[in-house]
Order: sequence, then C-alpha cells, then structure tokens
Amino acid sequence: MKIEVVTIGDELLFGKTVNSNLAWMGRHLAEAGYEISKHTTLPDERTSLLEGLSRALLHADVVITTGGLGPTGDDLSKQIAADLFSSPLEYQEKVACDLNKRFGNIPSLKNQATLPSKATFFENPLGTAYGLCFSEQKKTLILLPGVPLEMEAIFTASVLPYLKKQFPVPALYQKTLHFSILYESLVDPLLRTLQDSYPDVTLGIYPDYGHLSVSIRARTQKTVDSVEKEFMKTFSPYVFASPSGKLAEAVQLWFLEHQKTLGIAESCTGGMISSLITEISGSSGYFLGSLVTYSNAWKESLLHVSSETLQKQGAVSAQVVEQMLQGIFQCSSADYGIAVSGIVGPTGGTEKKPEGTIWAAIGQRGKPPEVGQFFVKGNRKTRILSTANILLGALLRKVSQKIPAFPIYLK
Amino acid sequence: MKIEVVTIGDELLFGKTVNSNLAWMGRHLAEAGYEISKHTTLPDERTSLLEGLSRALLHADVVITTGGLGPTGDDLSKQIAADLFSSPLEYQEKVACDLNKRFGNIPSLKNQATLPSKATFFENPLGTAYGLCFSEQKKTLILLPGVPLEMEAIFTASVLPYLKKQFPVPALYQKTLHFSILYESLVDPLLRTLQDSYPDVTLGIYPDYGHLSVSIRARTQKTVDSVEKEFMKTFSPYVFASPSGKLAEAVQLWFLEHQKTLGIAESCTGGMISSLITEISGSSGYFLGSLVTYSNAWKESLLHVSSETLQKQGAVSAQVVEQMLQGIFQCSSADYGIAVSGIVGPTGGTEKKPEGTIWAAIGQRGKPPEVGQFFVKGNRKTRILSTANILLGALLRKVSQKIPAFPIYLK
Repeated sequence: MKIEVVTIGDELLFGKTVNSNLAWMGRHLAEAGYEISKHTTLPDERTSLLEGLSRALLHADVVITTGGLGPTGDDLSKQIAADLFSSPLEYQEKVACDLNKRFGNIPSLKNQATLPSKATFFENPLGTAYGLCFSEQKKTLILLPGVPLEMEAIFTASVLPYLKKQFPVPALYQKTLHFSILYESLVDPLLRTLQDSYPDVTLGIYPDYGHLSVSIRARTQKTVDSVEKEFMKTFSPYVFASPSGKLAEAVQLWFLEHQKTLGIAESCTGGMISSLITEISGSSGYFLGSLVTYSNAWKESLLHVSSETLQKQGAVSAQVVEQMLQGIFQCSSADYGIAVSGIVGPTGGTEKKPEGTIWAAIGQRGKPPEVGQFFVKGNRKTRILSTANILLGALLRKVSQKIPAFPIYLK
Repeated sequence: MKIEVVTIGDELLFGKTVNSNLAWMGRHLAEAGYEISKHTTLPDERTSLLEGLSRALLHADVVITTGGLGPTGDDLSKQIAADLFSSPLEYQEKVACDLNKRFGNIPSLKNQATLPSKATFFENPLGTAYGLCFSEQKKTLILLPGVPLEMEAIFTASVLPYLKKQFPVPALYQKTLHFSILYESLVDPLLRTLQDSYPDVTLGIYPDYGHLSVSIRARTQKTVDSVEKEFMKTFSPYVFASPSGKLAEAVQLWFLEHQKTLGIAESCTGGMISSLITEISGSSGYFLGSLVTYSNAWKESLLHVSSETLQKQGAVSAQVVEQMLQGIFQCSSADYGIAVSGIVGPTGGTEKKPEGTIWAAIGQRGKPPEVGQFFVKGNRKTRILSTANILLGALLRKVSQKIPAFPIYLK
C-alpha cells in the first residue's frame, strides 16, 4: 500500500513556515506500520494543485493532504478534490449546526459547512475545517487542515483508525539505538556489513553533532534483536537510552535515579551544555546550574582559577579546566561537575592550539577528575554544539558505564 | 525560470527529522527574486530517486536537491545524478587533497572525493560532501548535502552566485527590517494595508520566537524606501540593525561601540540568553558571562538572593529577579545586567502564575532597574527561546533607543 503526502501552501515554498506536518505524520504512520513513499509541497495555485493531486492519486493508493481548507480565497483544496471526485459542494446542515454551536454565528462558517457530498467528514475538535475523505475505485484522498494541532487531532482521532481498518498491515518492529560521541564514518562500516547480512532489514543512520542514532526496522522482533546485538557488540560503550534521542534526557534519567546533582562551569560552550540540559522538563530535579565564565575575570572571581595559571597556561588548558571544576565543587554542593574551555573560532586559534581545540574536566566530588583534550570540526555554532554533546556523552560514560569519560579515539 | 527543490532522505519521510531546508532555501531564493514552484521529498531508494529527479528535470529548469551525499551506503544522490548526466564517478585528486588537509586521513574521504567528472564542484567549508552542479541542454541539477549548516554555507557561497549569473532576474531592490519583541498579529494589519496600497511590492513576514523580520521587495529603490518609512512610523521602537537578523548581533554591535560590559543571571532560560550571545564571534569583547542559577541554592549562594524572599514571593517574582540582578552587579564589574526567572512548563504553573509567566529585570550599574512581567506562549523549548530573544530586544530598547525596556503591550 502506497501513501503519498501532499502539503499545500505558498508559505511553505517561500520560507515563511517550516513544514512540521510531514515529520509528525511520518512518525505516526511509521509507528503504525505504514510508510510514506513520497511527499510533495504545492503552491496555492489551481493548475499545480490539480496536476499534483491527480499525479499523486495515479501513483499512490492513499493520498493525504494538509492545508488549503480555510475559508479564504487562496484555500483551494476542497474545490479541487470535489472536482476530481465529481462531487459537488453542498451546504451540510449538520456540519453547520455543529460549527455554529462551537464557534457562534461567524460569516465564514457557511463556507466551512459547504462540503463535497460524496466525502466522509472527519470532525475537527479544534477548528472549523473538517477533514474530508474520498474513496473510489481503490483510491483514497484524505484532506486535512494545515494548522499542526488541528491536523494532529483529526489524524489521531479519525485518519489512523480509518487506515487501520481499510488497510491492515503486518506488524513492523522497530528499534532506534542512540550513540554518544561517535561520528558517522565510525559506524558506517558495520552498518554496511549488517545491511549485506540482513537484506530484509531497513537500517538508517541519523548523525547529529556529537552523537548519532541508528534505526532498525524489520518484520520480526527477532531480527530487530539480532541486528541490535551486532551493534552492541562493537558500540555498547557509546549507547545511551533516551526516548527522545537526546543525551541530556539520558543524563537526567541517570541523575534522578541515583539522586545525584550536577554543576557545570562553561567557557567556550557559552551556556550550550546548560541549555541542552534545561531543555528537558524535570532537569531542576538534579541540575544546580552552570557558571558561564566567559571572561577570565569571572573565571578568577567566581571559580577561583589562579590568574597565574591563566597567564602561564592560557584559558584553554588542562590546568584551567581542572581549577574551574574545583571551583564548581567549592562554590556549590554538586556531586558531579563538568568544566570546559576551548577555541571555537573563527578567530583565536594558534599553531599550538588550533581552532577546535577543547580542554575539559569531568569529575565527582572528592575524587580525582578526568581531564581530556579533543578537537571538534565545523564552524563556531557546530563546534559549540558538538562539544556540548560530546561532554554530556562523556559524563554518561563515566557515571552510568563506569568507563573512562574520554574515549581514546577522541585524543 | 522554474525551480524545483527535492529533499532526499528516509529520515524526512519517517518523521525522524523536520525538514527545515526547504523553508531556508525558499526564503533565500525569494530574497534574490526567485520562486520555488514545487517541492518533493523522496526516500533513499534508487528507483524513486531516479524517477523523481527525472520528472523534476523534465518540468523545471533548475532542480536543487538536499541530502544523500554522505559517504554511507544509503547515500545515493551522487551516483544517480552521475547516471542521469552520463558522467562517471572519478577520484578527484584535488578534492581528495583538500579533504585530507582539512579532515586528516579518514577512510571515508576516498569515497567523498570520488565525484562525477562533468559536474562543477561547490566547496563545502563545513563538511566532506562537496556540492555538485550539472548543467546540460538548459537543465541544471544542483546537489547539496542535507545537513542544514553545510547546505546553507554552500548555498550562500556558491549556489546563489551561480543562479544570479546563469539566470539573472531583473534588478530587485530589497530591504529586510528586523523587529524585536513584536509578534505577527501586531504587524499583520499594517502589512495588509501596505500590500493594498503598493500592489507591485512583495511583502514577506517571517515570524521567529521573540522577534520577526519583514522583507520588502520592489523594482525601484524609491518604492522600497517608501514602504520602509511606513513601517518605521509605527514600529521604529522595535527595529534593530543586524546583518544576520540576530538580536545578539545588534546587542554586540552596541556594547562594543560603547565599550560597556554585560553580565547575566538566568534561571528559566537555562543558559539560552548566554548561548545566543556567545554564538556571535567577538562576544567575548563585552560579555562577561552568565550565572545560570537553576536551583534556589545557587540563587542564594552565588547571587545572594534572600531565602526569605524566595520562600515568600517564590522564585518567579519581581523581588527575586531584582535581587538576582543586584547579585550580578555585586559579584562582577558588569556595566549592564539582565536577570530572569519564569515558568516555562509543561509543569510548575499555578492559577496565579500560569505556565509562560516570566519576570525579568534589566539594569545599569548604579541606576534603578526596570522590572517587567510578561507571558510567552508555545511549548517549553519555544517559551525559552522567546523569552531569551524578548530580553535581548528589551535590553536593546533600553541601551540604544533609551526607551522603556518592556513595552506596554507585553504586560
């Protein structure tokens, strides 16, 4: 069964709006065992829409559209679908009643209650644009509004149940593995080998800055388990468990479970580690805070880094990050700490310490810290993001896996 | 001239990744006077790609793809484009040299340096995947990597200049105005009125979290100037100057010019203000740092917020942010300061202080601070980002425009 998604709207093509509907639908369809074979974005223009929807219906069994169901002049989806299925628009008394009850007597409601008589109507609990479903000669066209929350509500309440009933699929098993620190080219050789050994498995690799994910999809749980085992043989020191795929969530799970607290001293990452941590709801349960000591003055006054060390070794050095970490333990009750200082560019690099040089210390109160140096690639923004994620991954290795925070290949 | 964009990757169709590349390209093409007529998302699968790219090349003059240029097995774009343009892949000594110099001797580089000989190579300053450009019989195919920052870098440095040279459009005058704090519904009525008065002008509005941009495009400079004047009549207190459109850049320009320093105390924003500031190269010239006091313990010990105030008023209160700001001035030499505390959700809201409630203080050393309350909408992540940008905008109003930091409508 082939599903195509068509998102409609000028605002998507000229860059006013980022299309989040496709990703949302893709995820929810995949979880139910369906795949989107293709996706198209079309402008609010009659000829393009007619041509695009006809083509999609020719190639796919089910076409789902978002957008173009509003009451304004540039909303054309309803009329074009009515034409394609030879189903004239008619004022629907029952729909009008429902809309009037919920939204009062707004003029635009008359338009919103005028719908193609052949369609099945999917109620929209949040807005005035009903979802519409046409089905004829083994071709199904489902029209949904473009506002994400309205689309999601109709999709969950009506579209998924409809698909499951009309197009039952064999169960699809899936597992996503998240790895910290690793980069794509380190994982790829194994991925290729496994793909050869398991031709029926769909493997995907999703690199991100300072971490990556691998997805395994197969028709049996056993196959998924076997492939997972193969990955774990080589890469288990890097794996982390997190429903969202975010390192900060895995860090949070460990710290909350073990009732430990964390404090951070950031220089070159400028608050990014702290931002990643606090993006996760519930982080206040373990995260005390971060001293973003961007200036040497703050490193000295707040973290008691010695001005002599700063002068002699430079702010980007083993000695300074060690003192920053000590500073965190001195000025707070944190059980664990991270300290980092580096050169993220595009200026400030030297021959001895080129751009991308990072020094970091990770430690537990009262124990000797681990101090490591590594290099990050990219531009200023990606170097900061990579550094932040690498250090969250390094912390996880130390606390949950009890292995050296900084893997050898980083050095 | 017709441009189609094809974004490639299973991760887009399975919902792993939200496609932000289309919106970015759509906006930058529109600013240069081009329009995207259609957009397609295709899976990492040979038949679909071959069919999809052939069809796009049939209908459009220029096809731009993103994704599928990595060194891994599921990256197929390069090979398929090579087949379409009958241009065998060959090891490119010069590219290999460049990649080895920048990334060392990684095995995957050999693959990344094997490129179709007929293509023009567009250098990728951030990664290993060169952009590729084929042009034959009035059809142009441009392949770019899917990683947004790499795509954006190549697009700006190579693709736009190429398009402007090969497909010149009549001179288009353009101005982008950046406004802090404002949201779309405040600007939209004026935008509609101006659109009616100037039918030949293309107006675009690009809302972002806590700020927005308006683009004015017209065939004469005079028209652009007239429309700009109209916007400034109403919204000049919100306008800020920044080549990148980033508030932090405008803040930096002011602070460097006036040789003042800034220190921050963040609670609910968790380091985001600091991250936005330090994302701009050169920020160390004025930014001393941020105390991300996520816990009340750190608010007390580092910023000397009174535990009585915390208990009586709660951490999200006028009194606490005022004391946090005082703390910044006490523990550092900062000339200006921002302090913020709020409830970003999804838990922690109460009837009196619902989710989205933010208290902030902005001040200059030795002068009475401005303290303001406002509300931000969205989810946790967007509330944090909106708050951070609103406060950078509020700071700019205070320092550069000498008007109250918090506009009345925010209250």
